[in-house]
Amino acid sequence: MDQQQLFVKMALGNWNLQIGRIEKMFDGFNDDQLLQPVAPGKNRVIYLLGHFVAYHDMLGASLGLAERKYAHLDEAFLKNPDNSSFDMPDTAYLRNAWADVHSNLTNLFAGLSAEEWFKKHNSVNEADFAADPSRNRLNMVMNRTAHVAYHAGQIKLI
Amino acid sequence: MDQQQLFVKMALGNWNLQIGRIEKMFDGFNDDQLLQPVAPGKNRVIYLLGHFVAYHDMLGASLGLAERKYAHLDEAFLKNPDNSSFDMPDTAYLRNAWADVHSNLTNLFAGLSAEEWFKKHNSVNEADFAADPSRNRLNMVMNRTAHVAYHAGQIKLI
Repeated sequence: MDQQQLFVKMALGNWNLQIGRIEKMFDGFNDDQLLQPVAPGKNRVIYLLGHFVAYHDMLGASLGLAERKYAHLDEAFLKNPDNSSFDMPDTAYLRNAWADVHSNLTNLFAGLSAEEWFKKHNSVNEADFAADPSRNRLNMVMNRTAHVAYHAGQIKLI
Repeated sequence: MDQQQLFVKMALGNWNLQIGRIEKMFDGFNDDQLLQPVAPGKNRVIYLLGHFVAYHDMLGASLGLAERKYAHLDEAFLKNPDNSSFDMPDTAYLRNAWADVHSNLTNLFAGLSAEEWFKKHNSVNEADFAADPSRNRLNMVMNRTAHVAYHAGQIKLI
């Protein structure tokens, strides 16, 4: 294993760890429990579930690896806070969408060579990337890994 | 910048980002506000402040870079949950200790070559490390970065 492969393994290992933990939390709630807020007056678990579906569906596109499939969820789960009166699909749909988005990412990630991980993502332009090559695809996943942990800490309070 | 240096920059960039964010949160609370729980019946902010002092003081030791300085805080902030009736130092002490621990880590990290980051940490033995070189110092910091985000998400609820 060369240096790049080793570092990809480290970053994806941390991503998989955090995704596995929060997935176990979502799976542990029945449909009624998904409607609980993480704390009084705060986001409901169902909102966070949809939030990750939309945001990680967008991640595939931001990495330049896939087209959006769940952009129709952005209004309710990404662009607006919980309880903003936007239509939400039912919990069965969201649970399936979570599984779909993350299995798609797993497949896309598995198909990417270590070298490809160090190319630029779509949220940085060529000049900025040339000036700072740390703004690469793998770094975007590292950033999203912390975002997963951020909300996992909130859900854990229930 | 070679490959290893780039990885280190990516991982430490994410660490610094999360540390900076949570430090801003702690700084934004006055001493009375530090006594608030993140949610009813949950950890108080002061507990999380001390938790990071103890845990990140331990990080320096786990990385094999420093001796423990704040092990006397482990009972109250690491080995037991909040409100376990262990003595806690006052908030001024904890704020100073936070600054001390993190400025020490910054100095230690700055003095470490990229190559040193990929050596084993103290929580893995030689055989396991040989079998899985991803269990290195840098990976420990990547793991701790997610832990910071986990509790930052909780504090953000206040």
